[in-house]
Amino acid sequence: MRFFKLTLSYDGTAYHGWQVQINGITIQQVLEVALAPILGCRTRVTASGRTDAGVHALGQVASFSAETRLSPDQMRRALNGSLPPDVRILQVEEAPVGFHAIRDAKGKRYRYVVWDAEQPDVFQRQFSWHVRQPLDLDRMRAAAACLLGRHDFVSFQAAGSPRATTIRTVVDLSIERPSPELPRVEFEIEADGFLYNMVRNIVGSLVEVGRGAEPVVWIAEILASRDRRRAGPTAPAHGLFLVRVRY
Amino acid sequence: MRFFKLTLSYDGTAYHGWQVQINGITIQQVLEVALAPILGCRTRVTASGRTDAGVHALGQVASFSAETRLSPDQMRRALNGSLPPDVRILQVEEAPVGFHAIRDAKGKRYRYVVWDAEQPDVFQRQFSWHVRQPLDLDRMRAAAACLLGRHDFVSFQAAGSPRATTIRTVVDLSIERPSPELPRVEFEIEADGFLYNMVRNIVGSLVEVGRGAEPVVWIAEILASRDRRRAGPTAPAHGLFLVRVRY
Repeated sequence: MRFFKLTLSYDGTAYHGWQVQINGITIQQVLEVALAPILGCRTRVTASGRTDAGVHALGQVASFSAETRLSPDQMRRALNGSLPPDVRILQVEEAPVGFHAIRDAKGKRYRYVVWDAEQPDVFQRQFSWHVRQPLDLDRMRAAAACLLGRHDFVSFQAAGSPRATTIRTVVDLSIERPSPELPRVEFEIEADGFLYNMVRNIVGSLVEVGRGAEPVVWIAEILASRDRRRAGPTAPAHGLFLVRVRY
Repeated sequence: MRFFKLTLSYDGTAYHGWQVQINGITIQQVLEVALAPILGCRTRVTASGRTDAGVHALGQVASFSAETRLSPDQMRRALNGSLPPDVRILQVEEAPVGFHAIRDAKGKRYRYVVWDAEQPDVFQRQFSWHVRQPLDLDRMRAAAACLLGRHDFVSFQAAGSPRATTIRTVVDLSIERPSPELPRVEFEIEADGFLYNMVRNIVGSLVEVGRGAEPVVWIAEILASRDRRRAGPTAPAHGLFLVRVRY
């Protein structure tokens, strides 16, 4: 048995997230359907984590094992030949025996994109959250500073998603406007792991600070409260991108 | 009767171009349908030019006349409230009596986007032409220099689209990679007017030079031949953006 690591990108707009489910088409499903004739049998593919409906990936990682004589690059080409154009395999690599995309993940990086202008942009509508007020980046950066490092992020976890521990370590958090001409704000957060909806809850709360609806100290208060009812609104799924997974 | 000038942006992916037709939904149609209840009657809206199926606009201009007491900004808000999210009105202005978006246009600027890498990008697939070979910008710039100025562009006109004259003046033509990290090439062409498929035929021909399939002098030869059978392939519609119209 050989083990493989897939790196893939997808536009999540048309999908009901990663995981196979009955009421809509998912990334896992189209991937397993494309892989079956290549491997000669239906094979389970495991991603580093589920992404929700509408969430995008620049570099999601998935693992599977198979008996095959194909080279990793032959598999990549064959997969891209049959996958729909909104899902692309960037790389297939042979992985160490037992490689598992969830268990072996050491960290992840997410990007969240906000379009902060009165007018939405037709080309960004599926790839950013439209917020009508211009956001103050200095306020958001000051507010976000307290999130860096090892903390209990239970306040930023979606309700009804128990985990063994809610302690995570955020190793990077940046808030930038990549182009001075565009009303586009990019949040990037890297951590050793994320709780369910953690990025969307952090961004939703930071935007409240950035548009002046809450004080800078509010984020530190939410974090310290360890009370999930204290956080701001959950930012919508379609602004979120899984950038990469570290192993 | 008051005359109005609309500036609008659209993602052309879902539309059969600008002009009302029977076999698919068009931008003109959704605009006229949205305008009817605002003006109280069905009103014809004229664009600066038709865009083909899949072509996008950053700043298309359209004109209409109406008896109404609404202010331009009230019209903009009302239109955006009922238009689908892939069509946005950027501005409504009151125009001089008799203003006509086609007749009064003095020039247009188009952008054409090519993604030149072996792998396509899932987020660019509807907004660029995927060309597998990396393009040589210096070769394309040298080849394109002959197109600047006043010429007979009949060689770059689609067959079966007779115009009174095929002479146009190209006032700007640039070819850039906006980001050093991305395999993204942007062609921008501004002229006093364009023949049908002129931008797509010029880009399709320049790409042949850029990927080394034709010599640099080939573009000048096509232009001088005044023979539309000499030009390269027509670049696909989904990489084309109408940037702005000059009046």
